[in-house]
Amino acid sequence: MEDKAVFDLFFRKNPFRGEFAIFAGLGECVKFLNNFRFSCSDIAYLQEILPNVDQGFWEYLSQLDASQVTMSAIPEGYVVFPKVPLIRLEGPLPVIQLLETTFLNLINYASLVATNAARFRITAGDGVQLLEFGLRRAQGPDGGLSASKYCYIGGFDGTSNVLAGKLFGIPVRGTHAHAFVNSFSSLDDVSENVSFLDFCCFLSIVTPTTETQLLPAGNTNKGELKAFLAYAYAFPRTCLCLLDTYSVIKSGLPNFLAVALALNEYGYRAIGVRLDSGDLAYLSRKCREAFVLIADQFESPWMKKFTVVASNDINEETLISLKEQKHEINSFGIGTHLVTCQKQPALGCVFKLVEVNGEPRMKLSEDVGKINLPGKKSVFRLYSEDGLAILDLIQLCSEKPPEVGKKILVRHPFIESKRAYVCPYKVELLYRDYWGNNGLTQSFPSLQELK
Amino acid sequence: MEDKAVFDLFFRKNPFRGEFAIFAGLGECVKFLNNFRFSCSDIAYLQEILPNVDQGFWEYLSQLDASQVTMSAIPEGYVVFPKVPLIRLEGPLPVIQLLETTFLNLINYASLVATNAARFRITAGDGVQLLEFGLRRAQGPDGGLSASKYCYIGGFDGTSNVLAGKLFGIPVRGTHAHAFVNSFSSLDDVSENVSFLDFCCFLSIVTPTTETQLLPAGNTNKGELKAFLAYAYAFPRTCLCLLDTYSVIKSGLPNFLAVALALNEYGYRAIGVRLDSGDLAYLSRKCREAFVLIADQFESPWMKKFTVVASNDINEETLISLKEQKHEINSFGIGTHLVTCQKQPALGCVFKLVEVNGEPRMKLSEDVGKINLPGKKSVFRLYSEDGLAILDLIQLCSEKPPEVGKKILVRHPFIESKRAYVCPYKVELLYRDYWGNNGLTQSFPSLQELK
Repeated sequence: MEDKAVFDLFFRKNPFRGEFAIFAGLGECVKFLNNFRFSCSDIAYLQEILPNVDQGFWEYLSQLDASQVTMSAIPEGYVVFPKVPLIRLEGPLPVIQLLETTFLNLINYASLVATNAARFRITAGDGVQLLEFGLRRAQGPDGGLSASKYCYIGGFDGTSNVLAGKLFGIPVRGTHAHAFVNSFSSLDDVSENVSFLDFCCFLSIVTPTTETQLLPAGNTNKGELKAFLAYAYAFPRTCLCLLDTYSVIKSGLPNFLAVALALNEYGYRAIGVRLDSGDLAYLSRKCREAFVLIADQFESPWMKKFTVVASNDINEETLISLKEQKHEINSFGIGTHLVTCQKQPALGCVFKLVEVNGEPRMKLSEDVGKINLPGKKSVFRLYSEDGLAILDLIQLCSEKPPEVGKKILVRHPFIESKRAYVCPYKVELLYRDYWGNNGLTQSFPSLQELK
Repeated sequence: MEDKAVFDLFFRKNPFRGEFAIFAGLGECVKFLNNFRFSCSDIAYLQEILPNVDQGFWEYLSQLDASQVTMSAIPEGYVVFPKVPLIRLEGPLPVIQLLETTFLNLINYASLVATNAARFRITAGDGVQLLEFGLRRAQGPDGGLSASKYCYIGGFDGTSNVLAGKLFGIPVRGTHAHAFVNSFSSLDDVSENVSFLDFCCFLSIVTPTTETQLLPAGNTNKGELKAFLAYAYAFPRTCLCLLDTYSVIKSGLPNFLAVALALNEYGYRAIGVRLDSGDLAYLSRKCREAFVLIADQFESPWMKKFTVVASNDINEETLISLKEQKHEINSFGIGTHLVTCQKQPALGCVFKLVEVNGEPRMKLSEDVGKINLPGKKSVFRLYSEDGLAILDLIQLCSEKPPEVGKKILVRHPFIESKRAYVCPYKVELLYRDYWGNNGLTQSFPSLQELK
């Protein structure tokens, strides 16, 4: 008879020196349980590297699956805390042991990057758009897909990863590249495509904008102007120009205004601009000033609200500093710091045996923080009358659950002096059953719902 | 007619405040070129998110592939330096522009983690074994596979990622888990499997080892002892025990010695031990002292050389500090710091347009370090008489290549005062042609050769 075991998956410390984490990756764990099997080629490979193993073991392995496993977990997307088991797995000991690495792999990065995204969202505030631009810095194409998905759950609005848009329905956002601007060298680079604008008409519109004295006249880069024109021609309804290929103030901004005014003549409204280098707060304010001037001069008040997108190695500190400098940015494209979680690139989830055949187990350690809580446990979130969560209560399943309106003594698991009486106004059992009886026991919310 | 463009892929700064990088990921780029195509479902999705686009564009997209592209690159696995283009792509401008993000994604992390692995190897020295244990901290299962592969190229000896072993032929290494030890609670946990050892015989062997005074007698954890016995029974030829579930000195080490001596009685040699917490230098020395004592006492000199594997959040600084403390470790299992590249989790490769229809292009920037070198270039590595590389010389393809024995003046591209005369003893053209005429133009070395 096989030993029946209970394992807990949890993390020991909040990431990023913060006070919370967002739990993510659970859906992928369920898929993994559903597909958990050793293929013939897996077994052939293992036989090759483990030559002295009984035939009986290979037979055992070939029939192994997750049908005897049950999984309870906190719902994906919940705010979670250290030491609280996020996932509880129960079933044959050797089967669950084999799940360890994959479960840790699927939860660790997903929860870390979702938490990171949530922190960016909190720092940036609700008024701005946050776009994930991290594909090029992720750990390969699939690392990039994970990043896009879990940043969206964590609070981002869109991604530059088109495959993530296709596979997960995440809104796709982006602008043209610097190379697109570089690829044009003058207004003479005429192709049939861009005959739609009569350059004289266009240039006559430019003149008044330069009279605001804000913008130096006549010296803008003409290749860039041509690039913006070509882009406006292709995307007249979604024209957003990248301004910093040569110089935002001396070239990109006046060129964009010219194109936006020309589009306006043809009945289209440009969207805005993107800044990808330099002093983003200063440049965004300069852009806004110009937008306001132009809007007044051409009696087109909507132009005041051109979108300013900013990118370039943005992290939480940059967001705070930009705020202090009263930036005029509406949308941030965030890549490297978001997807690599530069501040702390690993969450450090662990997977610990806590019970065998009904008996509690624990790993000892000279470091008290590394000792795990033995026994099969349940977790309750206790709420106060105003609807706020007070704390998460970990109990043995054999203990009586907390009741609404009944005072209970709660203790910190490791710091003896931390204890309090709590009288919950509402009690939420945090665990749901996600897997059991050889299948999914709970329908899974969509990405939009998780978000 | 389409514009013909040249793009360079390069990085601007050595990672980890170091003086070099290892170039990796090229093989995946070649595979990507080979498969580069928009599927019908890709186009259907794009039509959905770009509703106002000419039908002609979709026809253009549906026939797009990399057949008109040529790619030259420095061979994978080479030591490379900032600003030197690692990959040069030539072909229709829009096609190459579409390759940008994927190429950056495939090169960035691969080169970063290979460089990190090489740095760990240099720091640890050639005498020790380095094992990649990072799967659980990687960005999803495929991020983990990339990590295993490129750490191997960078100088690691093996991985705990069994799928990487199966797919790439990387040696797979690992030990049992803490949970395996925890799952046994006493010697009474008898299963049919472990009847091979007569416990009396076994315990009588234990007694003398405790007489060395090194090891406290009789108080070891009996569940752990039972776990080691079960493991030794299953893997008599590769028995390596994890010592720190309870206490290395008071329990793990004496239990291992007992099992190793028992195995010896049956004609098998145990492999060694693993330490996963605590003062690794001290514990490894204590283990070695015990091995030497036992080896002398039982006239089995090979026991002196039991392998000590160490793991637990090891980074470059830990390796240096352990060396200073004269550790007795033979093998390091390295995870989090290796695969997340904690010190600098992104390489920052960029992909820049340098020529259109034979004319050079560049992106300007107020930051001189961000200006790229325009024009279609070639790179030569110049060697001195003693076979050492002196420098990498970047030239326009239109310039005359350097010649052996001919003095040339070389200049730093950004720091004017840095210049020198060099007379190369050997000149190596760093670029090889990897893709052209719609196919692979160079056979690709195996992972073992790349390493």
